[in-house]
Amino acid sequence: MESSARLIIAAGEQSPDLYYRTGFLTPDPYIYVEIGDESFMLLSDLERDRARKEGRATHILSTSEWEEQAKKDGKRGTAGIATLFLKSRGVSSITVPYDFPFGLAKILASEGFSVSPAEGAFTPSRALKTRSEADQIRKVQEGVEKALWTVVEVLKKATILDGWIFSEGTRLTSEKVKFLLKQELLAHNLIGQHTIVAGGVQGCDPHNEGSGPLPAHLPIVFDIFPFSEETRYYADMTRTLFKGEVASRHRELYEAVLSAQERAIAKAAPGVDSSLLHQAVEDRFAELGYKTGEVDGRMEGFFHGTGHGVGLEIHEAPRVGKTGVPLLPGHVITVEPGLYYPRLSGGVRIEDMLYITLSGAENLTTFPKDWSSVSIP
Amino acid sequence: MESSARLIIAAGEQSPDLYYRTGFLTPDPYIYVEIGDESFMLLSDLERDRARKEGRATHILSTSEWEEQAKKDGKRGTAGIATLFLKSRGVSSITVPYDFPFGLAKILASEGFSVSPAEGAFTPSRALKTRSEADQIRKVQEGVEKALWTVVEVLKKATILDGWIFSEGTRLTSEKVKFLLKQELLAHNLIGQHTIVAGGVQGCDPHNEGSGPLPAHLPIVFDIFPFSEETRYYADMTRTLFKGEVASRHRELYEAVLSAQERAIAKAAPGVDSSLLHQAVEDRFAELGYKTGEVDGRMEGFFHGTGHGVGLEIHEAPRVGKTGVPLLPGHVITVEPGLYYPRLSGGVRIEDMLYITLSGAENLTTFPKDWSSVSIP
Repeated sequence: MESSARLIIAAGEQSPDLYYRTGFLTPDPYIYVEIGDESFMLLSDLERDRARKEGRATHILSTSEWEEQAKKDGKRGTAGIATLFLKSRGVSSITVPYDFPFGLAKILASEGFSVSPAEGAFTPSRALKTRSEADQIRKVQEGVEKALWTVVEVLKKATILDGWIFSEGTRLTSEKVKFLLKQELLAHNLIGQHTIVAGGVQGCDPHNEGSGPLPAHLPIVFDIFPFSEETRYYADMTRTLFKGEVASRHRELYEAVLSAQERAIAKAAPGVDSSLLHQAVEDRFAELGYKTGEVDGRMEGFFHGTGHGVGLEIHEAPRVGKTGVPLLPGHVITVEPGLYYPRLSGGVRIEDMLYITLSGAENLTTFPKDWSSVSIP
Repeated sequence: MESSARLIIAAGEQSPDLYYRTGFLTPDPYIYVEIGDESFMLLSDLERDRARKEGRATHILSTSEWEEQAKKDGKRGTAGIATLFLKSRGVSSITVPYDFPFGLAKILASEGFSVSPAEGAFTPSRALKTRSEADQIRKVQEGVEKALWTVVEVLKKATILDGWIFSEGTRLTSEKVKFLLKQELLAHNLIGQHTIVAGGVQGCDPHNEGSGPLPAHLPIVFDIFPFSEETRYYADMTRTLFKGEVASRHRELYEAVLSAQERAIAKAAPGVDSSLLHQAVEDRFAELGYKTGEVDGRMEGFFHGTGHGVGLEIHEAPRVGKTGVPLLPGHVITVEPGLYYPRLSGGVRIEDMLYITLSGAENLTTFPKDWSSVSIP
């Protein structure tokens, strides 16, 4: 009998740690326990048979076997069954994820367990993608790029009237473009939420999803970050496209962001602190005279991190910002500097995904970003 | 100065309580505090300006104002900033949601706060839908029904060969039908995950999503439960359809589930304990001789709850099962009995959504379920 266990109680769909361990998705919480080399999934009768086919654990058990006992002992719900199970295995101390529900932790503590949150990640290897995981992410990215190509085709055929983009006789809107993107994503079994198609001044707010007619001549930010319904991996790409003639100040804005991104990407390698990528972006913007700060009560310039890890979560370790961590082989990170100036009616962001390898970094993004590709006549 | 506060630290997209309070979606966690009648959102510079447009709180603040101070005091991250803010307001005790991250709760406790999980729901009114919320759910449901009608049209035109359903010259598969459903959902700005189209023996596992060719003559379970990307409300409907001639044992299975569902629905009213709906289903199945239990290592019969609340979560309060709660005006619940017999190669489930009113219950589901509608020649 061991005396310590690792415990997750969560819905498979809510906990990437749990899904990473078991490969099993549920809408409702279930109990997952690791004791030494053994692992246990405790599920309702509704999920047990499916878990035996789809799940990964050394033991897949039904909670209904414990329900009678729990009732007898006056223990209720999932916490009650977890308590009975853990005690039956001689467990006295439990490590749980940092985001384990506080209410559940309190109940387990009141049952006499010593409950501690994991130091750092519960499943640290989740940040280090194997080649096969990187391939899954790349596959999602392929769908993302195909989706954006369909929009490029629409923009190529589009016309301009009074500063607005027209397609098939009507104004092209953010909503219409997002629908096109999501349709193409769906065809690749990808689910895109909060897809951003934000033109002109809307693009100056990095998380504005965009709405209404799309302007010609001004930057349009496309930020697309779906996950695969099959593998649950995300991909993340941003491109900024232009339709029609572009003023030099907007082209300069674009080239500034691109050069900053390229400098950051050039720094990406194993052992390098991720904050150096962020520093490279800030240095480049300073060099070019692009200032960041609050103007007329609104932020402008570059006021977000340079990137984040991507995997079973859209934002996961490691962060790439002011506070860094050493990049490690297996990390998948985005590099996505941006410049946002409401006074110029223009926001520009360019985002690629990198896979840190043993010797450097592979760019998982193949969609072009040179000026001639993104400025559509 | 008050001495107690209510606190959420979560991503708007992860916490229905937070979204319910603020109407603001973020991919990353932010700090939300209620002190007396005042409410505070503390966000990064990246989100602050958007929050001022889209969010609901009496004060919308930027965390960057606190970052210097936090660094000086050696306090880190979101917990550090929350600590500084709460202390500046004289707060000593904090109520958090049951699912508040345990790791964060420990840090706050170590800062001297008394931290308690809320007794029951953090936002109890979330279970009680206003007429306008029920209308949002109904609107999602309309999209769900339109999606299923497109499949009915396909099934009407389909042919049968060797026991399989053929459409446009090839076997109709679960995957193809799910794609059709999701396309139609997308057109209504609805995101459908884990949509179930499970025929024959696959339908005997209630959460099997279904794959491969669809059988004629056998029940096919369609369980569709998307949410609106605009309002975040879910809807949930299950229908079981048949293509071609149906054996009497399968028709009887269908009629049994339908009659059980109708009996449960008839019981739904304010003040009634939700367990009585579940009891009505179990009684009806017993009356008709349909048994539940493990046969050859697999569950058969009726082995899940009768329903659940629907709102900003697909499964929320109140549960409708063995353990009940009194139904209240404003509850939106599903009633979804099922019978699953692998030996009959048949699973049947029928699910409607009810809105409990002051005087009874309104059925939000209008898709027909009588035999002549669900058996498609």
